[in-house]
Amino acid sequence: MRKFDIVTPDERLRATFQDKIDNLNKPKGSLGRLEELALQIAMIQQTSEPTLRHPSHILFGGDHGIEREGVSLSPREVTWQQMINFTKGGGGVNMFCRQHGFDLYIVDMGVDYDLRAVPGIINRKVAPGTCNFLHEAAMTATEAERCIDAGARLVDDCNDKGCNVISLGEMGIGNTSPSSVWMHLLTGLPLADCVGAGSGLDTAGVRHKLQALTRSVENFLHEHPEYDAHPSTERFYTDVLGWFGGFEMVAAVGAMLRAAELRMIILVDGFIMSACMLMASRLNPHVLSYAVFCHEGDEAGHRLMLEAMGARGLLRLGLRLGEGTGALCAYPLLQSAVRMMNEMNNFENANITKYF
Amino acid sequence: MRKFDIVTPDERLRATFQDKIDNLNKPKGSLGRLEELALQIAMIQQTSEPTLRHPSHILFGGDHGIEREGVSLSPREVTWQQMINFTKGGGGVNMFCRQHGFDLYIVDMGVDYDLRAVPGIINRKVAPGTCNFLHEAAMTATEAERCIDAGARLVDDCNDKGCNVISLGEMGIGNTSPSSVWMHLLTGLPLADCVGAGSGLDTAGVRHKLQALTRSVENFLHEHPEYDAHPSTERFYTDVLGWFGGFEMVAAVGAMLRAAELRMIILVDGFIMSACMLMASRLNPHVLSYAVFCHEGDEAGHRLMLEAMGARGLLRLGLRLGEGTGALCAYPLLQSAVRMMNEMNNFENANITKYF
Repeated sequence: MRKFDIVTPDERLRATFQDKIDNLNKPKGSLGRLEELALQIAMIQQTSEPTLRHPSHILFGGDHGIEREGVSLSPREVTWQQMINFTKGGGGVNMFCRQHGFDLYIVDMGVDYDLRAVPGIINRKVAPGTCNFLHEAAMTATEAERCIDAGARLVDDCNDKGCNVISLGEMGIGNTSPSSVWMHLLTGLPLADCVGAGSGLDTAGVRHKLQALTRSVENFLHEHPEYDAHPSTERFYTDVLGWFGGFEMVAAVGAMLRAAELRMIILVDGFIMSACMLMASRLNPHVLSYAVFCHEGDEAGHRLMLEAMGARGLLRLGLRLGEGTGALCAYPLLQSAVRMMNEMNNFENANITKYF
Repeated sequence: MRKFDIVTPDERLRATFQDKIDNLNKPKGSLGRLEELALQIAMIQQTSEPTLRHPSHILFGGDHGIEREGVSLSPREVTWQQMINFTKGGGGVNMFCRQHGFDLYIVDMGVDYDLRAVPGIINRKVAPGTCNFLHEAAMTATEAERCIDAGARLVDDCNDKGCNVISLGEMGIGNTSPSSVWMHLLTGLPLADCVGAGSGLDTAGVRHKLQALTRSVENFLHEHPEYDAHPSTERFYTDVLGWFGGFEMVAAVGAMLRAAELRMIILVDGFIMSACMLMASRLNPHVLSYAVFCHEGDEAGHRLMLEAMGARGLLRLGLRLGEGTGALCAYPLLQSAVRMMNEMNNFENANITKYF
């Protein structure tokens, strides 16, 4: 698989940036998480005067073989119907992109419907949905590679247009299931702690989903007896990626790795995009320096997954729509953090007694 | 004291608005608190197509006699220094007002400094700081009335300009102390649960603050033996308001009550503004229908105070700057909620299988 050469921000400037933040005319630390965010952005951009330019949102769509096992309340056709809806501007993702000035790219990575004639959808279709990972690998290694590349290249396109903030979203009925399995296999947390209600399963539905995923993991380990100990090897990670992943998810992993390589800020949405960031961080831990975790959802396990990455979400609004809406809703906080760095007076030029 | 004739939103349209929200093309409830916010705004405006117009932020400044007791880490002169800083655009409140398109009104209700020559400060000074409520009432009934009127009239001015969203903030070194006492006397919660670190006191500092406030309450009750049982009477509330209140806080109470009377959305900031909303709600409970609690801070007791009003904050960012910054930072979420109502397709016109 393609290697990404991600450099972590140079630590030598951290103290300088922190000093600037501490001398703005406010009690030290009183802008809370905005101060942490400002420091992270300054570190990513290696400047005490950071800027946010041409924010872009890439929404990857794909269908899932595992959906055939009844793991989702929503029917499969909602994936393609929503993809078309997004091209008309009527989805959740559209209104928040308009609100916050994001360019929106709608990408068909593997939707189970012919969308080629639909204007506004970028065609990167690998196949009309993944295989059912209960029985076999969701995708081949070649298909996974194609997804990684497609995601990375779309980030290149954004970067070429001057974008330095990338936000990622997904549309794929059933994709909390692969996310839960990735989380389980990459963190070692019990599968039951990684499985939630998705878009609204009841208790019996969650139990059925957990059973299907448990059997899926058993079958995977049966095919790969060498992985009983969940080794920390790249081969294990790429096998887990391909066996369970959705095309839209693997594309997001590629996009994240490339964005970090390009030193862009990465806005991470909810459960599914967090699972993609978790996978990306296993492939290259340095990616986490560029990740802003935007929303902490109610989906069982999301908080545990963030903890596994040492992260907390900026917003907790009970969002569970997907599409990247949680990432977009947090964007004004990044703008606030950047304004703080650039516009707030310090104690000296404001002639204010330094207080605490 | 002036009476405010606040009408609660007509309940008859609630089901219609909820039905519109439930039929937008998303799993029901999947936009979480944005959906609750949309419903509240629709109810306030009694329309399924709400709008936010000319948002305005009024920042009231005032000094406090109790500050003489060493209850705050920050020195008194920071109040007037910051008021001048705000006129120059270099404060926290300024950058967030610019970011979100708020008109900003900076009002001297009782700062201990002659600010009359400073352009950009609206002079409504009652006195150069309140009296020390450890020993006597912070203000007279007439002074309290002047503050209520000043706050209400400023809201009238905003409303005359077409504003239907009002945000309130404060600048007043020491004003977590009166806020804690208001909370204690209006909710019956132990004073210790209502007192926190303010802008950064250490443990010893908090203990000293609690002692000073405990003695203050004792002295108040000694002057008013009839209040031992904390009666739910308007006279009790107005006596508590005047004995402990800051000029800037009482002005905010007046502004809140008038804004509700005018059916405007009220953005409530952190601990101090929540205490003002608590006081306003004791004077007229209907005001709460118009209140959006924007930030839930780390200040001890803020969560308890919100609970006492049946509320939760939208954001939890660890902000403790005051000035109304927490209210301003939440504003994009109101815009998102309104966009959802007006721009999101419903299942029917988007041709999407209704899912859950």
